[in-house]
Amino acid sequence: MKIPPVKGTRDFYPAEMAVRNWIIDGWKKVSVRNGFEEYDGPIFEYLKMFQIKSGDEIVEQLFSLQDRGGRDLALRPEITPTLARMVNQRINSLPKPIKWFSVPRLFRAERPQKGRLREFFQWNIDIIGVDDVLADAEVIFCAVDYFRDIGLGTDDIVVKISSREMLAALLQAIGIVENELELLYAVLDKRSRLPDDTFEQMLVERIADENKREKIIELMCVDSIEQIGDCLELNKTAQESVDELGRLFELLGVMGVGDYCVFDIGIVRGLAYYTGIVFEIYDKASELRAIGGGGRYDNLLKQFGGPAIPATGFGIGDCVLGILLEEKGLLQKQLPERNLDYFVACVDESYKDAAVKVTMRLRSACFAANFSYKAAKLNKQLKQASDQNANKCIIVGDELKEDKLVIKDMTTGEQELIDFDKFFAELK
Amino acid sequence: MKIPPVKGTRDFYPAEMAVRNWIIDGWKKVSVRNGFEEYDGPIFEYLKMFQIKSGDEIVEQLFSLQDRGGRDLALRPEITPTLARMVNQRINSLPKPIKWFSVPRLFRAERPQKGRLREFFQWNIDIIGVDDVLADAEVIFCAVDYFRDIGLGTDDIVVKISSREMLAALLQAIGIVENELELLYAVLDKRSRLPDDTFEQMLVERIADENKREKIIELMCVDSIEQIGDCLELNKTAQESVDELGRLFELLGVMGVGDYCVFDIGIVRGLAYYTGIVFEIYDKASELRAIGGGGRYDNLLKQFGGPAIPATGFGIGDCVLGILLEEKGLLQKQLPERNLDYFVACVDESYKDAAVKVTMRLRSACFAANFSYKAAKLNKQLKQASDQNANKCIIVGDELKEDKLVIKDMTTGEQELIDFDKFFAELK
Repeated sequence: MKIPPVKGTRDFYPAEMAVRNWIIDGWKKVSVRNGFEEYDGPIFEYLKMFQIKSGDEIVEQLFSLQDRGGRDLALRPEITPTLARMVNQRINSLPKPIKWFSVPRLFRAERPQKGRLREFFQWNIDIIGVDDVLADAEVIFCAVDYFRDIGLGTDDIVVKISSREMLAALLQAIGIVENELELLYAVLDKRSRLPDDTFEQMLVERIADENKREKIIELMCVDSIEQIGDCLELNKTAQESVDELGRLFELLGVMGVGDYCVFDIGIVRGLAYYTGIVFEIYDKASELRAIGGGGRYDNLLKQFGGPAIPATGFGIGDCVLGILLEEKGLLQKQLPERNLDYFVACVDESYKDAAVKVTMRLRSACFAANFSYKAAKLNKQLKQASDQNANKCIIVGDELKEDKLVIKDMTTGEQELIDFDKFFAELK
Repeated sequence: MKIPPVKGTRDFYPAEMAVRNWIIDGWKKVSVRNGFEEYDGPIFEYLKMFQIKSGDEIVEQLFSLQDRGGRDLALRPEITPTLARMVNQRINSLPKPIKWFSVPRLFRAERPQKGRLREFFQWNIDIIGVDDVLADAEVIFCAVDYFRDIGLGTDDIVVKISSREMLAALLQAIGIVENELELLYAVLDKRSRLPDDTFEQMLVERIADENKREKIIELMCVDSIEQIGDCLELNKTAQESVDELGRLFELLGVMGVGDYCVFDIGIVRGLAYYTGIVFEIYDKASELRAIGGGGRYDNLLKQFGGPAIPATGFGIGDCVLGILLEEKGLLQKQLPERNLDYFVACVDESYKDAAVKVTMRLRSACFAANFSYKAAKLNKQLKQASDQNANKCIIVGDELKEDKLVIKDMTTGEQELIDFDKFFAELK
């Protein structure tokens, strides 16, 4: 009986697993040097947890299941709700600020497409307890620190930044009332992916007043922070959030990552919970979906039953990133090669157990070692050693009667006769 | 709104995550030095995949869900069926023997108890394509290599070994017909966990003939390979599998792990797919559930639509292992400490951006570094540095006007004045 894998999932054979490990190890390394500590939650949570503040798009894409008692669960489509739950559970005992990262496996029951799978990994970092825009700058730095580390430069990657708080103030200045904002965000978020007339049609459905619509379209065409004031008169809140954006770009400059970052008023983010600075990371050519995104979500912990505590963070997935790295030729050459320290061959069957013994001693001394399951001809075993990329090959033969082993350097081809006991004594 | 986590799952706060990472990193390290390559599959597969050859217990405990098209899926309760699927998909192109390992997250909808959770990690290693008992010995070696590495000795751990093939031959010699075997295995597998009379009652339900039952009970009391012949006359198949067990113990001796291993005819394994050598790993005091187990499953790949190809492997979970390590006091002292290379303080607000800049440069040069979000009093910042276990603290102050920084060694308390540019030039 032959059963296929489920559509939208991936099989990680050793070659694909090496890529996955390299990406995830890179995320972990950069997180740790940026002062973040790792956490994780369960793969599934109560379904209602994801219905609280996630975007509609995410809720529609949940894989739901039930526990034995018939309670509704869902595979996590994002980890931020779990983070909010975990932090709230220990809010009093956790030292603040909280700087945590995670690399959750996430699930979305959407139609698989390029860069979008039903099962993927996402690098998340979050800073909880700092309202200063310095924290927003730090999470953006952290993303760029990673991209720079793996060779993605300013020609490859761009971080597009805006502010939900500013957008809210500007839209309210145009005359949009507060409870219309959330649905309007969903439309504005889709703008860059839609033809102009489709976007304008969607806007008509949300905003009846033509003057307001025109003002919104005009606003969405602004392409620098300075131009905003030309387009609209700024009230106090709007001015404050414009100033905050200015300070953010100043900090990004101080941090040495300003050249990766641009202001883009079209960045809104799909998720309902963002409250301030928002950003998305794209390939410079804009040929792929967003590589990641994030922003400030100062109300989420409170909405999950905790105190009002500010928070900011990002999520970067492995799918689009993997495609971009592949396209840029940055993947294969950076992957660590699989190799063995030793391959242990034996000249004939009578030395097989001895070869096994030598192999196991090497392994216990922390060396990667393999042996041949069959006492094949020596040439065949040397071929195996070379296929497995062994640095050295130990040949067990008659020399063993005098407590000696032959070691062949697989690069130079040089052979050396070594003393068995001395060799193992020196290994430890 | 406060929502609890789902029962039987775990939240991994940084302290628990450090334990999980340490256990999993240990598994990976030992797998690699034993010559295994890592793979993984999806978290869910088609439900029917797990119904093919898993034990009844596992099938009852599946978390099932559906995809958008209404097809039945299940969260993986074990990874061996996925392994069989993946190997079969590429059977012709994969070099043999296949030595693969994985650390899948697995799910079983059972009642949570000590050492048994609904969501856990399991170390799996498998050798596919070797029918020699040497491969069975190697997987057992690999498990012991790990236990020895983390300080679990022969006083802590025992590997109990038997053979399904031998048991089948012996039961058939007693007069049990082949199609009764599978249900009988399920009863025999439970024996060590049941009072004698309950076990005998269950046996009555399976075997009507009292003589056969008595012979089975007598057989299950055998406690060495040699005694088997005293209990029953051995036919050819039985003798061959007894000899194979003998050779296995000889190899385990050669490998230097014989003292961890005992013969135990009561080891049957719950899963339906085992065909030869089987083993389970227990704490020596037998106070906990099995830490892991494995064995030979020569028919599984064929049952999944592939060729007849021999295979052997094991699975070791993280839950019981974690409890044992905790009880033995082996956990906390082996965990790597969280620390920072540098904490960057500033003497007042005017030097804050400079402190941020220094921090980011340190991070990009691969050092773990943090700074203070508030330009608090220097003493407070030094306290933060010490709380975060920083090795060194850089103090940014008036010295910066002459391009100098103060570095304080947090262990000795010594301070040094260093040249800014020279310091960063030397870092790279």
